[in-house]
Formats: sequence, structure tokens, C-alpha cells
Amino acid sequence: MENRERIIVLGGDGFCGWPTSLRLSSEGYDVVIVDNLSRRKIDVELGCESLTPIKPLEQRLRRWEEISGRRIDYRALNIADDYEALEQLIQEVRPKAIVHFAEQRAAPYSMKSPRHKRYTVDNNINGTHNILCAIVESGLDIHLVHLGTMGVYGYGTAGMSIPEGYLTVKVDIDGVDREIEIPYPPHPGSIYHMTKTLDALLFYYYNKNDDIRITDLHQGVVWGTNTEETLMHPDLINRFDWEGDYGTVLNRFLVEAAVGHPLTVYGSGGQTRAFIHIRDTVRCISLAIKHPPARKQRVKIFNQATETHRVRDLAGLVARLTGAEVRYYVNPRNEASENELVVHNEQFLELGLNPITLSEGLLQEVIEIASRYADRVDQAKIIADSRWRADIPLDREGTAARREPVAA
Amino acid sequence: MENRERIIVLGGDGFCGWPTSLRLSSEGYDVVIVDNLSRRKIDVELGCESLTPIKPLEQRLRRWEEISGRRIDYRALNIADDYEALEQLIQEVRPKAIVHFAEQRAAPYSMKSPRHKRYTVDNNINGTHNILCAIVESGLDIHLVHLGTMGVYGYGTAGMSIPEGYLTVKVDIDGVDREIEIPYPPHPGSIYHMTKTLDALLFYYYNKNDDIRITDLHQGVVWGTNTEETLMHPDLINRFDWEGDYGTVLNRFLVEAAVGHPLTVYGSGGQTRAFIHIRDTVRCISLAIKHPPARKQRVKIFNQATETHRVRDLAGLVARLTGAEVRYYVNPRNEASENELVVHNEQFLELGLNPITLSEGLLQEVIEIASRYADRVDQAKIIADSRWRADIPLDREGTAARREPVAA
Repeated sequence: MENRERIIVLGGDGFCGWPTSLRLSSEGYDVVIVDNLSRRKIDVELGCESLTPIKPLEQRLRRWEEISGRRIDYRALNIADDYEALEQLIQEVRPKAIVHFAEQRAAPYSMKSPRHKRYTVDNNINGTHNILCAIVESGLDIHLVHLGTMGVYGYGTAGMSIPEGYLTVKVDIDGVDREIEIPYPPHPGSIYHMTKTLDALLFYYYNKNDDIRITDLHQGVVWGTNTEETLMHPDLINRFDWEGDYGTVLNRFLVEAAVGHPLTVYGSGGQTRAFIHIRDTVRCISLAIKHPPARKQRVKIFNQATETHRVRDLAGLVARLTGAEVRYYVNPRNEASENELVVHNEQFLELGLNPITLSEGLLQEVIEIASRYADRVDQAKIIADSRWRADIPLDREGTAARREPVAA
Repeated sequence: MENRERIIVLGGDGFCGWPTSLRLSSEGYDVVIVDNLSRRKIDVELGCESLTPIKPLEQRLRRWEEISGRRIDYRALNIADDYEALEQLIQEVRPKAIVHFAEQRAAPYSMKSPRHKRYTVDNNINGTHNILCAIVESGLDIHLVHLGTMGVYGYGTAGMSIPEGYLTVKVDIDGVDREIEIPYPPHPGSIYHMTKTLDALLFYYYNKNDDIRITDLHQGVVWGTNTEETLMHPDLINRFDWEGDYGTVLNRFLVEAAVGHPLTVYGSGGQTRAFIHIRDTVRCISLAIKHPPARKQRVKIFNQATETHRVRDLAGLVARLTGAEVRYYVNPRNEASENELVVHNEQFLELGLNPITLSEGLLQEVIEIASRYADRVDQAKIIADSRWRADIPLDREGTAARREPVAA
């Protein structure tokens, strides 16, 4: 497996970026992490920290080298801001692939205020555009692998299963219905999700005009925290978000149970979401790197999700396992209270992914971590205080919300 | 007509913005122009100037007040950069509508270099997003009227006429073909055009989440220069672009004829484009302001174009009128060499637009202006030196290109 191909991981210090970097390093790639540590700085801004005591990046990297014998380089760089340094780095490293995690990735954070909306748009769009522009300038045949979200599809398409990026439709051309395949019409539910739909157009354009090879991974909600590599030493532990902005639903429930907080269901809990375990995230990214689209092929889009669940079913499951109370809060999001979701993910299955699905064993592993570090949780930060519109009430007690009647 | 409603015109010093501001002022609106004079600074960067000797903005505005008795306010402000000032201005003016011309609007300029690509993306997306964000914060019911482009549709849809923004398709839902209407799948041909497709997603999202009323005008290539109002005094004259980046095709041919330069047809000239006269531009914008979408209605999209022509037919027409030579150059764009284009524009016709179409009289008017100011043209700046890809040769002589065989 010692192929010595080089890979740049943008955002390689983050929740998905760090375990991906370790996985790629252990597979024998020469990995260069680029990060401006924005996620750690946002922790400081929000006044909270990862549930797990993550080490500073340099310490993590030294430990990884000691344990694995493999060196990962690190460049402190804001890719949305310092284009020249990014271009220079690409010219110098000449990577086979660039994995792009370097975006602000929380929907609630993107809705907090005009400053947060504007930061998310500015950072994500200029960052993605700078990468594409720099790849063109390099003249190199570099495969860009981008972490996107299932959220670009929207969740309102009753009865229609979600294809992998492209939708076959019939249009009337000169009075005859002809079949054409179009990019799935985007339907973003937050400023954050909107930036991912803008990214998709940047990819579409650069792929068409400049023949850049691009893979866009439409990922579901990630759960779990550790991977094979992050478990090799406590200093390699992965981050674990639990607070109102960055904590995603299943992990958040498990932490809430561990600290004796009610499980926070926003709205009816009838929202169906797609999920993936962090260990499958790193496997999928490795598979995507190994199977780039052909030269001049259109943008390759995978749905990176392995199962779907309704939020209230997950709350019920965690409540049964832990005895926690389930409480319903006013939904700060502007979304349908109930939705179906059927997601195609055949492409990764065909490449050999054997999905990790929800099991009590894996949930217990997360509960164990949550209990071990429960004293790092500030209960005042658990409830989301972002709202999608100023006219949505903030419900910190979970008393104003009544569970809406549920059809099935 | 003295309604004293206030309108902010963003980019009100530009080619479309200036005559629009005068028209709205003469219709009795209180107009506030916001501009950072970027277009004049780009003239400095490119080492050329408007064919017509336009006056500094403050002089134009004093002359307008003297002649019309109406005052237009002016705020020097970069809306992509100074969000706080924009928000404050909106709170202070409380406009009925905001007309948004404040974008970098030349496709060739957007392709010159990484710096130009990045400026176009950063300026256009952050500018548009700041406006939307500031409208939400104001809590006011403000109608946003945006100048877009026919170019978002792409020109490759053989046999399919271009609807006004939305496309009816059939999709298979549970084995049954159902009709749905989707935003027309965007197909941008340059970085500039791409930014307009990104704008469309910003509009889609803010309209859906925040109920902002938005009209997006998909405009064709503008020709002509003066309007009723700009003709009222030489100091009110409108700008006229002729050089390789900003000069659009028909106006450019007329200047080339006036200065004895061959008419510059890029590629086969088989490209079909949609056109509109500048006097219809200002009428359409006035109509759009008077007919806002209803509250909670989706983004209203008009095709702001009145006729279509093939580029080589226009070259032939100008050559016949002036005796100029037609010369074929390597096309710097990455596009189909021939395309059909059928454009729906029923919405403006229904609102009473009586289109100005290509006529010898109007062409003569432009030829007359071009001849009067011919000494302001630097012939070295006529040929576009932007290229869509580094592997497209730069053809300054028009000798390398051979006219491609034409089917019809």
C-alpha cells in the first residue's frame, strides 16, 4: 500500500478531516493537512469545547508520527483568504487529490446573525472557488473530493427517492417528451446548506470549462467519534460536538442522556434524516479517492449515507437505552414538520462499502465516551439559540412546544 | 406621477444604472444611487475609457437637478465590503424597491486571470448576499429587482425554447409521471455568468426562508447608448463600451466600423444571442418595479430581451451599412460554434412593453455617436485578450481563424 501519492486535506484538523487524514496516512499516502483552526476558534467564540479532550494539532501530529512512523505535514493557511499561498502549496506538493473539508459546516451557526450568515457565505464560496482556480492555474490533473451534504436535496420531495446527484426528467421539445438528465434541483434549508448548493455550481462550471475531475459527496448526519486510527492513542482522539450549533442529532442525544438533560427534539421529531457513522465517512473518502471520475466525465456525485431514521425514533431509542426523558422544543428551523426520505447509495455499495448501521453496541461505545467526559459539558449550551427567522420563538424550556399530531 | 416612493439604485453610475436612475427620477421616484465607481476604475486598469465622454457622477447629478428640478442622492459605498453602512442606509431610506446593478458584468473581464475570476466571484456573491441579509434585518417589505442575464440558461438547448425562469418537466414518482415546475437548470458559460447562477440560488433561498419579494431580469445583450433622459444634456450622456472586455457585440461592431477596424467576429459567428435596446432596459426595469411579485410568491423571472440574432448576421448588416470588412478571429470562449435560441418574453409584452427592434435608424444613431467620438478609441484595445482556457490561442490578427463551415 506504500504508494507515496500525495494528498492535501483541507480542514484536516476537523471532525471529519482529522480521522480522514489519519486513515489516508495509514493507507500509505503522503498527507498534507491545511487548516486555519477556525473550528477551534469558533469553540472559543461559543464558550464551549469538544466533549473529548482533543490535543493541539501539532501534538496530535507528533503522536501520530511516533505511533505510526508516518509523518503528516501541516500548513496553517486560510484558503478563503490567502490564494497565493494556496496556489504555491499546490504547485509544490503536486497532489494526486485534494480533499476539501474547509468550510463552515453547521446550519444553526450559519443562522445566528448577519455576521454568521455573511461569514459562512464568504468563507465557503471563496474557499471553494480559490481551490478550483488554483487547480486550473497549476495545470495539474488533480482530483478534487468535496464533502457536501444530503441537505442540498431538501427534504420535501414526497414519494420521490433521492438519486445520486442527477435526476432524469422528461421535457417537451418540439411537442415530443424527451428524457434528459439534469443536476438535481437544489432546495437548501439554511444559509449553510445554500453554500453547498453554490459549491455545486462552481463544480459544474469548472468541470465543464476546465475539465477538472471532481467528486462531490452528499453526506448524511455523522454519528460516532472514534475510528480505528484515532483509537490508537488518547492524544489522537477525535472531536465530539454536543452544543446547540455544532452538535448533530444522534451524538447530541447521547450526550444529553449522559449528563441528565432531557433529549432535545425540535419540532415534532417527524423529520427523517440520513445518517452515516464516522468510520464509514473515512472509508467512503478513501474509496472516492481511489475511484476518480474519468477525465472529461461530469462531476461524480455520491450519496454518502447508509441509513435513514426519524428524529423521534432515535430519541425513543436513546431513551430506552438510557432512561432519559424526551422533551419537545419549538423547532428553530423553517422546515416541514414531517418528511419521508429514501436515499440511493448504490455507488458506494458497488465499490465495496459494507455499511456500519445503528446498533446498540456502537451506541454504547458513544454513551461510554459521553459519560467519561460528561464534566466537560456546559448544560447552558445544549439548547440551540439560533433561529431561522426572527419570528420563531426561542424555547429554552421545551414547554412551549407541544408535540404535533403524527399521521403514522 | 409624483409618488415620492424611494428607490435605491445599486450601481447607479453604470451603463444600465445611470439611465435607469434618470428614468426613475423623472417618473417621480426619490432615487438614491449607491456606487463605488468600480466600473470607472476598471477603465483606468484597462487603459481605456468610455467612447462617450461621461462626466464624473457628482457633475452628472448636479446637471440633472438643474435640468429636471429633481434631486438624486448619491452614497459612495462598496456593498460587497461595507455591510454595516448598507444596512444603515436601507434603514434610513426605507425604500419601496432596491434595483441591483452592482456587479462585475463582463464575461471576458471575469476570465482574464485568477485575480479577475476571484474578484468577480467575491464581489458579486458577497454584494448580492449582503443586500439580501440587510433587507431581512431591516424588517421592511422591500422589493429587490436584480439585473441578471440570459446567459444563465446557456445556449446549448437545441430545439427547446427558453421559458421565463421555470421549466415544466415530468418526473417518475412511484412509477407515475408527474408534472413539476423547477428552476431552469443553469448552464453558465463563464465565471461572470456563473456568479449570476449563484445569485439565483441566493434569491431562491431568501425568498423561501424570509419571504423577500424578488424579481430577477434575465437580460440579453444591450445595444444603443442614450435614452430620452440622457439626451437632455451632453453632461448626462451615457457610457459606451467598445473594448475587448466590456464592449458587447453590436455596439462594438458599430465602433469598429467608425474607426476603420475590421468587424471582429469570434468563431464562426453562428452564435445566436438575445438583444435589447438600452431604452427598453430602462422601461422594463420601471415595469418590474411597478409589478412586484405578491407577498410569498416565488422569485419572479422575466426574460428581458426583445429579439435574437446570429452574430455573423449582425456583422453582415453593419458591413452593408458602413462598408466595413468582416474578419473572423479564434473564439476565446469555450462554447458551441452554432446555436439556436428561441426566447419567451411574454410577461413584459403583457405589461405593455412595445419593443424597440433593430432598425437602420437606430443603428445610424449609434454610428453617428461612434463617428463623433472615434478619436477616443484605442485600436490596440479592440481585440479581446481574455481567453476561457490557457490552451485557446490568442488571435490578434484574425488570420489564424478560418470561418467554420456553416450548415444553413
